[in-house]
Amino acid sequence: MPGRWPGHRGVTASDYAQGVTRPTLTGTPDAVPTIELDELLDGGDLELIDRWLGQADVVQIADELSRLPRERRAVPFRLLGKDRALEVFELLDPSLQQELLEGLRDTNVRQLFEGLDPDDRARLTEEMPAKVARRLLAGLSPNERRLTSTLLGYAEDSAGRLMSPEVASLRAGMTAAQALDRLRGVGRSAETIYALPVTDDQRRLVGALGLRDLVLADPATPVSDLMDTTVFSARIDADQEEVSRLIREADLLALPIVDTEDRLVGIVTVDDAMEVLEEEETEDMARTGGAEPLRRPYLATSVLQLARSRIVWLLVFVMAGAVTVNVLAAFEGALQAAVTLTFFVPLVIGTAGNTGAQSATTVTRAVAVGEVRLSDLGSVVAREAETGLLLGAILGAIAFGPIALLVEPRIATVVSLTLLTACTFSALVGSTLPLAAKRIGIDPAVMSVPLITAIIDAAGLVTYFLIAIAVLGL
Amino acid sequence: MPGRWPGHRGVTASDYAQGVTRPTLTGTPDAVPTIELDELLDGGDLELIDRWLGQADVVQIADELSRLPRERRAVPFRLLGKDRALEVFELLDPSLQQELLEGLRDTNVRQLFEGLDPDDRARLTEEMPAKVARRLLAGLSPNERRLTSTLLGYAEDSAGRLMSPEVASLRAGMTAAQALDRLRGVGRSAETIYALPVTDDQRRLVGALGLRDLVLADPATPVSDLMDTTVFSARIDADQEEVSRLIREADLLALPIVDTEDRLVGIVTVDDAMEVLEEEETEDMARTGGAEPLRRPYLATSVLQLARSRIVWLLVFVMAGAVTVNVLAAFEGALQAAVTLTFFVPLVIGTAGNTGAQSATTVTRAVAVGEVRLSDLGSVVAREAETGLLLGAILGAIAFGPIALLVEPRIATVVSLTLLTACTFSALVGSTLPLAAKRIGIDPAVMSVPLITAIIDAAGLVTYFLIAIAVLGL
Repeated sequence: MPGRWPGHRGVTASDYAQGVTRPTLTGTPDAVPTIELDELLDGGDLELIDRWLGQADVVQIADELSRLPRERRAVPFRLLGKDRALEVFELLDPSLQQELLEGLRDTNVRQLFEGLDPDDRARLTEEMPAKVARRLLAGLSPNERRLTSTLLGYAEDSAGRLMSPEVASLRAGMTAAQALDRLRGVGRSAETIYALPVTDDQRRLVGALGLRDLVLADPATPVSDLMDTTVFSARIDADQEEVSRLIREADLLALPIVDTEDRLVGIVTVDDAMEVLEEEETEDMARTGGAEPLRRPYLATSVLQLARSRIVWLLVFVMAGAVTVNVLAAFEGALQAAVTLTFFVPLVIGTAGNTGAQSATTVTRAVAVGEVRLSDLGSVVAREAETGLLLGAILGAIAFGPIALLVEPRIATVVSLTLLTACTFSALVGSTLPLAAKRIGIDPAVMSVPLITAIIDAAGLVTYFLIAIAVLGL
Repeated sequence: MPGRWPGHRGVTASDYAQGVTRPTLTGTPDAVPTIELDELLDGGDLELIDRWLGQADVVQIADELSRLPRERRAVPFRLLGKDRALEVFELLDPSLQQELLEGLRDTNVRQLFEGLDPDDRARLTEEMPAKVARRLLAGLSPNERRLTSTLLGYAEDSAGRLMSPEVASLRAGMTAAQALDRLRGVGRSAETIYALPVTDDQRRLVGALGLRDLVLADPATPVSDLMDTTVFSARIDADQEEVSRLIREADLLALPIVDTEDRLVGIVTVDDAMEVLEEEETEDMARTGGAEPLRRPYLATSVLQLARSRIVWLLVFVMAGAVTVNVLAAFEGALQAAVTLTFFVPLVIGTAGNTGAQSATTVTRAVAVGEVRLSDLGSVVAREAETGLLLGAILGAIAFGPIALLVEPRIATVVSLTLLTACTFSALVGSTLPLAAKRIGIDPAVMSVPLITAIIDAAGLVTYFLIAIAVLGL
């Protein structure tokens, strides 16, 4: 029952989190080493574990559970009281929530499931096998089932899935006193009452009001005088990430969600937006590094899952790497004529690869936070080409001296010229590919470092040998 | 004057953002191409620009200003009314705020500066030359000056700099009605009134209460019955990132900040926490890609600044790359005996480099979001070694066939064995370096891809040639 528990996620995201006293965060972290749940479980002393659970706060408990191997999570979770169990459960990753449910008895499962907010429940349901999900949904009270089913009807990653349908809204014709009265009636079950959408008789969004203004206003003032008539809102089919980013950019506590007829259907709160953004950033980070996102805490991920998240991009790289083999084979003559050329292959392609990775990560991030749009392609390319040229010139100049002295001036010329060319080219490719990906509707972060590296490696090698042949007259 | 303007950042972060109607976010983005301020400025029609500014919302205006070259920002900004100018100003990056101030006349500057919240003012002051900052601070009203100076007294990156000293707090002995009365008095100027710390007579934090519970309670109930006595809080010297992460993890609206004697001194709100986390993530992303963070929007960054952010790590790579040159020179004999070996150098070191980058980004992120701690070093290393071995085995097996068929079985053996060894080693190095960095107090993200690549390249080459000499009997 939403509203019963002062949970962290939904109902009272806005109030202080409950939980027993947590040591105040201080400037000297790690000063007191905490005992970890894992060690207590090793000891096997249930009483000691119970005492730890009583002293820790819900965030700490959720943290510790996320670090345990799957089979060890059920015991400490069962030792939690019903209310705290729900609070901890709400803080866990959906993948861990599902695994925990599998280890619990049916009555406990039903209680937990019924206690969740409809939006959290919808997210958890996505993770479950369809059969289990149907059975659990069937066990809900009619009202909770209706709320959850509505959410599940919207597309994945849409605002509809993220929002809470339990929105406390006001009518424009009410007075401040009437509005506060209404909140006393519906306020307990609503997701938030701090940001209050105002609607007309057809439930169409016409304004919004913060609880602060309502509380501070003269009780007789009509809501229509207090409200802002100009509010941010999002359509139910809008992308979750965009919705979350708007909440962050405009510093909102919540964003009303409307249907195609502009009727209020729900609200997205800042805590859910933060979660979406954190997930999105973890995904981007993983993809930039050339791995698929894990979608679960690191320590709760098996070696097989880790390997699976990485193998695809490595295979792409190895396949593309076949091109470099062929390039080198094609220039076998040059290599045999001047074996010294080989010495600089890793240096040249490594530098090019790093320049490309720098451009790619910078541009990908700028696109992700909305600083760069598709229409900026021209100015991004110009900027990156100049930067690459500048970097290549600096590196080429620095490399020339030592190589000329220690190896040979002509080889130094080849390396320096290649650095100049390859850095420019890499910066261009590294910045263009993420934008090209966005253009065709792919997440720019998918243009990962390994893919860009593979392209740059081959191109860099060809450049290197062509310059060598020209300079050395091979 | 805080409280006068319903700004986005501070005062009423919690209320809906003001601003004229923004087109509702829909599921079909980019459908209507927006006219960009840049183009309007090209046209030079001030009336048209004025009309655009009247129609756009503050988030859009701030976005557009961030995309303009420095010298073009002053004109549209001056066309904004006083109140909207402050709202837009608050949404800008501190680096852009400072540049804008330089282009304005003294009276405007003083007005803007006085209108900011103390915490935003403190952040802006960091960016300014000390002389300008002193002059501006001297022009503030005594109360505003006192608030800002207090904040500036705390260490950079500490909670003290991030918090707002304008905190609305309650006393445990009040009734709900008295508490609401008090809020009507101080509520306008406070940073937030949605999360209310409760103190004793010595201003020591003893509990906390959400405005929701206060509004929904019987007016005669004492605050001490309504409040949670167990609240999250942070010391004034706590790290900003940790404070922000606690706010996100525990889904808080605000976190009370206390001094060493547990006395309430301020409050950090969720919007400021989101900003800190976004900045932190942009930094991590940049460092992972081997560049220093830009600290300003991409399009507002000059080519020189871009190059400067990247050159250091490239130089580190080139210096370290000298090792690979020496490794290859040392094995010149082997290279001349079997020139085919050269063909696979980019493939082998590239694969090793990518495996290392995957491990590094995964572990760095896991450390950043708190999933992995220093004490987990052992289990991380074991996990990554296994993953690397598994990946190396798969890639080695896949590479063997084609190379054996198209080149030579013995070369295929060398490449496969090297992939197996190098992937394991790379995953180990890639995962250990970030943790080692954290151990000695360096941001793990600084162990960037270029540095890890340089180490792995050299080690991979040595392995390759040692295996080649053994297998080929050179």
